[in-house]
Amino acid sequence: MASVDEAMSRAIALAARGLGTTSPNPVVGCVILDQRGEVVGEGFHAYAGGPHAEIVALAQAGERARGGTAVVTLEPCDHTGRTGPCTVALIRAGVARVVVAVADPNPLAGGGVKTLREAGVEVVTGVREGEAEQGNIAWLTAVRRGWPYVIWKYAATLDGRSAAIDGTSMWITSEAARMDVHKLRGTVDAVVVGIGTVLADDSRLTARNLRDGTLNIRQPLRVVVDSSGRTPEKARVRDGAAPTWVATAAEVGVGPDGRVDLAALLAGLYRRGVRAALLEGGPTLAGGFLAAGRIDKIIGYVAPKLLGAGSPALADAGVHTIAEAIDLDYTEITQVGPDLRFTAVPRKREG
Amino acid sequence: MASVDEAMSRAIALAARGLGTTSPNPVVGCVILDQRGEVVGEGFHAYAGGPHAEIVALAQAGERARGGTAVVTLEPCDHTGRTGPCTVALIRAGVARVVVAVADPNPLAGGGVKTLREAGVEVVTGVREGEAEQGNIAWLTAVRRGWPYVIWKYAATLDGRSAAIDGTSMWITSEAARMDVHKLRGTVDAVVVGIGTVLADDSRLTARNLRDGTLNIRQPLRVVVDSSGRTPEKARVRDGAAPTWVATAAEVGVGPDGRVDLAALLAGLYRRGVRAALLEGGPTLAGGFLAAGRIDKIIGYVAPKLLGAGSPALADAGVHTIAEAIDLDYTEITQVGPDLRFTAVPRKREG
Repeated sequence: MASVDEAMSRAIALAARGLGTTSPNPVVGCVILDQRGEVVGEGFHAYAGGPHAEIVALAQAGERARGGTAVVTLEPCDHTGRTGPCTVALIRAGVARVVVAVADPNPLAGGGVKTLREAGVEVVTGVREGEAEQGNIAWLTAVRRGWPYVIWKYAATLDGRSAAIDGTSMWITSEAARMDVHKLRGTVDAVVVGIGTVLADDSRLTARNLRDGTLNIRQPLRVVVDSSGRTPEKARVRDGAAPTWVATAAEVGVGPDGRVDLAALLAGLYRRGVRAALLEGGPTLAGGFLAAGRIDKIIGYVAPKLLGAGSPALADAGVHTIAEAIDLDYTEITQVGPDLRFTAVPRKREG
Repeated sequence: MASVDEAMSRAIALAARGLGTTSPNPVVGCVILDQRGEVVGEGFHAYAGGPHAEIVALAQAGERARGGTAVVTLEPCDHTGRTGPCTVALIRAGVARVVVAVADPNPLAGGGVKTLREAGVEVVTGVREGEAEQGNIAWLTAVRRGWPYVIWKYAATLDGRSAAIDGTSMWITSEAARMDVHKLRGTVDAVVVGIGTVLADDSRLTARNLRDGTLNIRQPLRVVVDSSGRTPEKARVRDGAAPTWVATAAEVGVGPDGRVDLAALLAGLYRRGVRAALLEGGPTLAGGFLAAGRIDKIIGYVAPKLLGAGSPALADAGVHTIAEAIDLDYTEITQVGPDLRFTAVPRKREG
C-alpha cells in the first residue's frame, strides 16, 4: 500500500532519471496504484520520441490499472506528437483518478486535466507541486519564458582565480570535481563557452567518463560564442564527437556590447531544442551573461588553493559599487573530493 | 562516577573557556576525581596571573582529593612564576595519580611529570592527547617555535573580491559574519593589519559587541604593519580603546621585500606575549605572510555576491604558475547567516 503522497515522491524520483535525455521534452515520472492502493506500474520518460511515462506505467499495470489511480509529476499531454495523447491512454485504461503535481505550461501539450475531467476521470492537482517543480525546474522555466535555463559553472581557487599569472590552469580542481562536471554535462542540452576558452584550453566539451575516456551516448550541443569567427578549424570542439554550433555575431546578431547578442543566442538555442544550458566560461562571457540577468543558477567548484595573481573567474559584470553587487542565495554547500562545491541562485531584485 | 577519559574530555572543555584571556599562558583545564572516581573538583586557567587550573580544582576538592586522581590537559608546571608550582600543590593535596594529555613544551615550566613521579605520584600521559593538542594549538605551536600562531581572516565575494571597483566594501558580508569576527578577535592576543587597511577603512580593530558597541573587557593588541610610519594621528586604532603597536620598518627591521620584516615582526609580537595573532588584511600584507609561509590557519567568510571587478582579497603571494599554488585543506565548511565560512590549513609541503 502506498499513499498518493508516497507515490508522487516515487514518481518525482523516477522522473529525475530522464534528466539530460528528454529535451525538448520535460522529465516526467508516473506511478499507477490499483484500486487498493498497491503499486502496479511505474514509468518515466527516457528520451524524446520514446514513450511517455504514463504509457510505460500503464503497460506495466495492464488490467490492474482499471479503477485505480495514476500519479504523475506533470499534467498528462493531450496532443499527438511523435506519440499519442496520454489522456486518451489513461481514459482507455479505465483509470478512475489522476493525481498531478505540476500543470503543463506548454500551450501545445496542455489541456490534459480538462480532457480527463470531461471524460469523468477524477483529477487532483498540486500534490507535492514544489518538489516536482524543482525536479523539472530547467524545462519549466525555459518553456514558460521561451529561452533556456542557464547554469553557470566555474572552477576557481579560494581567491577567485581560474588560472595562474602564467596562464596555467590544469588543474585547479580535483579529479573528483572534474568527474562531477562531466556528470553535470550529462544533464543539460548544451554546453556554452566563449572563444577565449576555446583558444586557451582547446577543451573537448564532451560529456565523458574521465577514467576511460568513453563518451556518453547522448552528447550536449557544444556552443562556442565567437563574435568574429575565430574558432580554429582544428579546435577539438570541431572533432565531430558531438554536435557543435559556432555562434558568430554575423549569424546571431550583435548585442549592445558589440559582441554576440545574448538574447538572440538564447532564443536560437531554444529553437534548437535546448531547455537547459551549461555556461562553462570564461570570465568575459560569464560577466556578460550575469550583467544581462541571464543566469538562473551558479555551481562553483572552489579548490582549497591560493594563487594571489592570475586570471579571475569572473570579469566585468556591470557592477560598479558594492550596492550593485549581484546578490545570490546559497542553495547547497558540500565537498566534492578536496574541493568545495556550492550552488547558488540569484536573489530576486526588489521593485 | 566518571572514567578518566570522560574526565579529560570535561577538562578540555573547561580549558577552552580560557581562550583569549590566558596569554602568554596556555589554556588548561583540570578535573579532580576522588578515590571512587567521583568528580570532586573542576577548574580552568582564566587569566595570566590568576590561579592555575589545578589550584582551582584542588581548592574545590579539598580533602576529597587525597588518594584521588587529577586529570589535567597540560603537564602541571614545576616552577614558581606569579603563582607557586602546581606539582607541589598536587603532592601536598595527596593526589595518588595525575593523568596528563599533553607535555609542556616550555622549558621553563616543564619537568612537572618527573617531579611528580619522584614524589611517588603515579603519572599517566597522552590521554586524549590529540584533542587536547587541538584545544591549545595556538599556544603550543607558538611556544614550540617561538613565534605566534597566525590566523588569516578575510571576507570576500564568491569571485574573491573584497571591494568593488569604486573602493566600496561595506558591507561585503552579513552582520552575522561580522559578529563572528568579533568573537574571533576575543580569542586572540593581537589583531594585525596593513597600513593600507587603516588608510582605507579606518577600522577600530577592537573586540566588541556589535549590537550595543560595548567593548570586551580584554582587548587584543592592535598592530599596524606600517613600513614608513603613515598611520594618521587621528586614526581610530590610536583611540586608546585598546593597546596599539604601529610597527614600522625603522623599529622592526626591513625584510627582503623592502617592507617590515615579517620574521622580526612575529618575534617582536612573541616577546610582547602574543601567542595567537589574527591577520585581518589587506591583500598585500596577506600575500606577504603567505609567501613567507607564516600563516597557520585561514578563516574565510565568503558572501553570496559577485562583483566581477574590484580589489582582490589576496595580492601577490609569490605564486607564478599553477604548480606553485598554495595548497590547503578545508577543516570546516559552514554557513554563518547568509555567508559561507570555511576554515583551512596549509598543506605540509613534501620534501
